[in-house]
Amino acid sequence: MIVDADLLIHSAAQVVTCVADAPKRGAAMQDVGLISDGAVAVKDGRILAVGPTESIRERYSAGQTINASGQIVCPGFVDPHTHVVYAGDRIGEFEQRIRGATYLEIMAAGGGIVSTMRATRQASVEELVEATLPRLAQMLRLGTTTAEVKTGYGLDLVSELKMLEAIAALDLAQPIDLVPTFLPAHAVPPEFNGRSAAYVDWVVNEMIPAAADWYRNSHFAKDSELSRRPFFNDIFCEQNAFDLDQSRRVLEAGIAHGLPAKIHADEFTSLGGVGLAVELGAASVDHLDATTPADAARLAASGVVGIVLPAVNFNLGSHEFANARGLIDAGAAIALSTDINPGSAPCPSQPLVMAIATRYQRLLPAEALNAVTINAAFGVGLAEHIGSLAPGKQADLLVINSSDYRQLAYQFGGNLVSAVVKNGRLLSL
Amino acid sequence: MIVDADLLIHSAAQVVTCVADAPKRGAAMQDVGLISDGAVAVKDGRILAVGPTESIRERYSAGQTINASGQIVCPGFVDPHTHVVYAGDRIGEFEQRIRGATYLEIMAAGGGIVSTMRATRQASVEELVEATLPRLAQMLRLGTTTAEVKTGYGLDLVSELKMLEAIAALDLAQPIDLVPTFLPAHAVPPEFNGRSAAYVDWVVNEMIPAAADWYRNSHFAKDSELSRRPFFNDIFCEQNAFDLDQSRRVLEAGIAHGLPAKIHADEFTSLGGVGLAVELGAASVDHLDATTPADAARLAASGVVGIVLPAVNFNLGSHEFANARGLIDAGAAIALSTDINPGSAPCPSQPLVMAIATRYQRLLPAEALNAVTINAAFGVGLAEHIGSLAPGKQADLLVINSSDYRQLAYQFGGNLVSAVVKNGRLLSL
Repeated sequence: MIVDADLLIHSAAQVVTCVADAPKRGAAMQDVGLISDGAVAVKDGRILAVGPTESIRERYSAGQTINASGQIVCPGFVDPHTHVVYAGDRIGEFEQRIRGATYLEIMAAGGGIVSTMRATRQASVEELVEATLPRLAQMLRLGTTTAEVKTGYGLDLVSELKMLEAIAALDLAQPIDLVPTFLPAHAVPPEFNGRSAAYVDWVVNEMIPAAADWYRNSHFAKDSELSRRPFFNDIFCEQNAFDLDQSRRVLEAGIAHGLPAKIHADEFTSLGGVGLAVELGAASVDHLDATTPADAARLAASGVVGIVLPAVNFNLGSHEFANARGLIDAGAAIALSTDINPGSAPCPSQPLVMAIATRYQRLLPAEALNAVTINAAFGVGLAEHIGSLAPGKQADLLVINSSDYRQLAYQFGGNLVSAVVKNGRLLSL
Repeated sequence: MIVDADLLIHSAAQVVTCVADAPKRGAAMQDVGLISDGAVAVKDGRILAVGPTESIRERYSAGQTINASGQIVCPGFVDPHTHVVYAGDRIGEFEQRIRGATYLEIMAAGGGIVSTMRATRQASVEELVEATLPRLAQMLRLGTTTAEVKTGYGLDLVSELKMLEAIAALDLAQPIDLVPTFLPAHAVPPEFNGRSAAYVDWVVNEMIPAAADWYRNSHFAKDSELSRRPFFNDIFCEQNAFDLDQSRRVLEAGIAHGLPAKIHADEFTSLGGVGLAVELGAASVDHLDATTPADAARLAASGVVGIVLPAVNFNLGSHEFANARGLIDAGAAIALSTDINPGSAPCPSQPLVMAIATRYQRLLPAEALNAVTINAAFGVGLAEHIGSLAPGKQADLLVINSSDYRQLAYQFGGNLVSAVVKNGRLLSL
């Protein structure tokens, strides 16, 4: 009996499924689940079946078909760590840095996170949405179908809630599914200069409860299977930001209000953020540039996904990158993310992040692909729904204009994405 | 009196002209010729006028107008050093390298230029055209409107002429103007293993004369102002390729047959190629990773454009880049190029090259923009016709979706090009 599907993509040189029941770790990251001459059947926004073209065509027919001959089909990319909502830009800082200005000189000239905070506080929800839409459109064209988005440029209650409103509006305004993360502890705002403890009190006692209320009333919390999203709570655990005790307080307060934890850890210094992430069962621990071998082993023994962000290092013209190779070899589950933001990573492209990671962190193309699909989906708590091509999953998938998935990481600077299917619908880009 | 134009682009936040009478060198590379609230009038494939919107609209009207409000207008990019025509791919080598294989192990496994040579020799002109068209389409979407293209994967007379035929066919088949360069001395082919002197004799006595004949009969040599192209002769001057004396012989033979010189020099070792380029009045000297301060001074005192290729270093995961900052500070005229090729730079994007150069070579965004426009046009001998926005020039220009030209280098991995005008015609991409 032939089953009716909505969409049948067939004859792909390779279908790359990236299927896994748990984050792929260690050597398992080299397995992308490759099917030669593959096909995918889609119905009602979900994947019905994945397999060799011949067997899929025997069992399914569809009104809409895509002949993907000479191309590959893979899961839509998940970008698990972004600061894509902001106002203003930081182009002046970029030029200052090229001319040799130090970080402190840039701060003194009004740069850094606080500069974006000022512009974001002054913007309305509508202005934030308008400024962000073109960035999300670029990400979509480059294959990202789900993105986590952090607050953290408001740094006061009103402005942080405004950012959450903008994230919710953006989620409804364009195809990429957004996963909200609350990050009032991104930096100590100027009003609390030298009083980070008082700011942490404010975050714990006022901001997190208010954000939890906001979430319960947002569409993200509604129980539609394809739209329900977790709501994370995050902190920047770093010298000159928040220390380990403050990080624990903020993350535990989030958990108490139903917000699972994420943490920015080990970007510049190792303060113990990895251990905290493991202890609290965080969804992810992000950056990991300064992670010690002992913490790599801790991460490997945990269920926490390590998210590395090499576009940041690239953007700074750095010659140091997180030791993602060592983390994988130690047995950790690694995801990759753009960290798209106006200061340290003005980059919308997960394929370019794969290109950087394969060159400067010695990830294999297969590892890089798992790192932007299934492992990234685990990193945002949505691996039941997205991140791989398996029956029952949300039909978020890409057709890539190459016959070998490794070209996705090998070619750089262009865009091999020839079609994006989101929730089962072929988008016109 | 109002003059009729074909196309009027107006209200651009910035028009960036990049105008110069000679290659921009030293501090002059910081001047991009910026006009705020600018406009460009185009007629019969040429630029009629460039200036403030108000004054242009007083003097010109056109049937087709583009409101570039909030965007910038700049010259189409010139990519002055490419190996974009080839067959096969080298993805296996890439993975081998990540796994730690040495250059010699990759050669032993059949990799390197010779691997591309084998695939290219086996391909027909039509197959080469078909394989190359998608790469040129990507380059065009990323803003490249003129590209130099080298032979050098044939390495025998028939195959090198076949590559020239493919370049000519591709020039006619798609919008990017191609500038042919003859590079039979890209490597010593296997038939001449250990007998590079004999191969150089063959190149000088047989191949260059045959190529010069080919050019005279090609459409490139026809005297239509917008289509006439120079035909360069190039060599890879490097240890294990061709030494300085061989380079001189090959380039002088080219000049004697009317082919101006280009030279790959100082990629790994400094053999004196810069001095040779200066002495022979080459259009460009390319790579410059190992250039000495004395040669930098020689280059600065000459009319030769130095072309640096940082996508190659990026592709190899290298922490060493050509000292383009030092070359400019010494007073040299520098251009940037992708070097797009299957082995060392699978990159179609001049904007990404600008992004790498601003970060790892400390070029200012203005320097990077001049390096992919006017200086690159000088590097391919076409600065009278392209590379800047000035009355009388070919109307090759871009509309960029940003209000600040510096974003072209700052943002990376996406594509800010919102429109390409080629020969006065707005392309649909």
